[in-house]
Amino acid sequence: MSRVEKSGLYCPNPFGEFDQILLAHGSGGRLMLQLLDNVIMRIFDDSLMHQGHDGSLLEPPHSRLIMTTDSYVVRPLFFAGGDIGTLAVNGTVNDLAMCGARPLYMSVGLILEEGLPVSILEQVLLSMKSAAQCTGIRIVTGDTKVVERGRCDGMYINTTGIGGLEAENQISAAQICLGDAIIVSGDIGRHGMAVMSAREGFSFSRPIQSDCAPLWESVKFLLDANIDIHCMRDITRGGLASVVKELAAACKLQFSLIEKNIPVDSEVRSACEVLGIDPLHVACEGRYVLFVPGNSAETAVSLLNRYYCENGDRMGNSQFQAGVIGEVIPGKSGIVTLRTTIGGNRLIEPPSGEILPRIC
Amino acid sequence: MSRVEKSGLYCPNPFGEFDQILLAHGSGGRLMLQLLDNVIMRIFDDSLMHQGHDGSLLEPPHSRLIMTTDSYVVRPLFFAGGDIGTLAVNGTVNDLAMCGARPLYMSVGLILEEGLPVSILEQVLLSMKSAAQCTGIRIVTGDTKVVERGRCDGMYINTTGIGGLEAENQISAAQICLGDAIIVSGDIGRHGMAVMSAREGFSFSRPIQSDCAPLWESVKFLLDANIDIHCMRDITRGGLASVVKELAAACKLQFSLIEKNIPVDSEVRSACEVLGIDPLHVACEGRYVLFVPGNSAETAVSLLNRYYCENGDRMGNSQFQAGVIGEVIPGKSGIVTLRTTIGGNRLIEPPSGEILPRIC
Repeated sequence: MSRVEKSGLYCPNPFGEFDQILLAHGSGGRLMLQLLDNVIMRIFDDSLMHQGHDGSLLEPPHSRLIMTTDSYVVRPLFFAGGDIGTLAVNGTVNDLAMCGARPLYMSVGLILEEGLPVSILEQVLLSMKSAAQCTGIRIVTGDTKVVERGRCDGMYINTTGIGGLEAENQISAAQICLGDAIIVSGDIGRHGMAVMSAREGFSFSRPIQSDCAPLWESVKFLLDANIDIHCMRDITRGGLASVVKELAAACKLQFSLIEKNIPVDSEVRSACEVLGIDPLHVACEGRYVLFVPGNSAETAVSLLNRYYCENGDRMGNSQFQAGVIGEVIPGKSGIVTLRTTIGGNRLIEPPSGEILPRIC
Repeated sequence: MSRVEKSGLYCPNPFGEFDQILLAHGSGGRLMLQLLDNVIMRIFDDSLMHQGHDGSLLEPPHSRLIMTTDSYVVRPLFFAGGDIGTLAVNGTVNDLAMCGARPLYMSVGLILEEGLPVSILEQVLLSMKSAAQCTGIRIVTGDTKVVERGRCDGMYINTTGIGGLEAENQISAAQICLGDAIIVSGDIGRHGMAVMSAREGFSFSRPIQSDCAPLWESVKFLLDANIDIHCMRDITRGGLASVVKELAAACKLQFSLIEKNIPVDSEVRSACEVLGIDPLHVACEGRYVLFVPGNSAETAVSLLNRYYCENGDRMGNSQFQAGVIGEVIPGKSGIVTLRTTIGGNRLIEPPSGEILPRIC
């Protein structure tokens, strides 16, 4: 993408007779240049993209760099609270944020299905641009491929992110200590249920909005307040259950969670009950788990709630309920127990099969 | 990918009863961890990948950075001279090399089709690892998604590369000058024809091998010899014709090429004649065009031929015929003329439709 000079002209009907993606748009020829100039470069429009090369020369970083990548194959492309474009930017931004890194640069790899309406592509690219601007990451280079009808599902997007490390202390599973408080930044399970609703046409009394949102600003708010974050992880595929199990195994400690403290929206809870799905297995795209020393848990929670009360989640959502959901205790490595609302204890396991395919 | 600790054990039959990719391998649950541990992390096995995080902390760079991305959707996955894995590494390495940058770090985003044999996945990952080692780039982070049967074509791969700029002078279309010699690093059109042969089952008297190969070492050889490279571009989708047209437009100068100087393997030429395709429109994956001052053209060509004579192309191929194929002349911006072997002159145009879909 970065090799093509920008046309500089806004063209209201850039494709003339074509309003769908053709195989020839992936050919390296004239139509491909038109797609790049008139749609992709026009929408993204970052000076680093206009260097007339296949690679983008980045501005010199001031900090150590983090690299992360994700492909997005969500079905359907649009859902309440976002679309594949919002997801593709925020998902990668959040992987950087969880390392304590400010999102700096992003590449975008598009795989388009022949026949995709160009209007859909434009809508998704505009979502990407808006999400990128919202969090300050720059889309600097890209690539577009087209495959035949039936060899994709509308479009798949890969984004790779480069971030600059701002956390002074190391943030990783290895830093999790006995006595750490386990905090969740907001209610869980909305993204997975929003995508399921859009896909299956479920209707609930109140539509479930995805929680898809960027996390860097709230992380930065905690770092600036000198909260000693030992570890963070965004809650995505496999839900909260997968995240805590993976981290408990990685730090070789036991976690104890309290079910009544885990925030779940009532509509999400009802939907999960109807579908027979455990909300702990449902993905979010704008929530994270963090581990902090027990004695700073209260401060961290009140900072998070203050941040979200003042800023929303930058995607227009202002309902948040950050809270302590458990602690790190002596016990067996990799075990996570849940004290249930009815007073029992159960072991938490990640989902073993695929309950919600293609939610990100 | 980088979030999962490596099992440390070689497991000869890592999947037990599963020898195919299941949707559950993309779930974030137990099967996904098995796929990561027993196949992907075991094969790639880079210490930067084992940081237990979704992002990978890179070692501090000594130079300015270049970022590039490409998705690979080649059909079929295997062809004479390479496979989608070789291509996915070399293609991205070459985009960095063309900027004058040493390939440093790479991310890998896999989109797998349900039902893909795990043995095929392993074979492709081994090709990636081998191609990465060959050129010194480190695969540091990754992501794996699984889509339903019929929503992909075996597998698609995105690679995003980070390179460290080593060229001292700027290398870009804007540096191309009147009087520059236009050099091609080897014979053109083999990759496209190798893929077409594999796809359509054509058989020729001698099989056409793809030219897929990494270009950085040969670029470095020229830079070390103080060749003042004004611009380089690898010849991929759209072939030599697309590359020269795009560069002539970007530098606003006219190019004059001489057909008899453009090296085309006799088997490739015959295949193109049978299929009615202009070899100038056929992709390579290990050839580049470079622009140098006219008075250093001879030195650059002899260095290139010496390099390839001594080193092959690092993919076992030693037949190369670098040569001057034309020059930059006064004239009309964006025009490229070809003096044909029968003495006429014709204008070069990029392909306007799609003649060879999905060759990379």
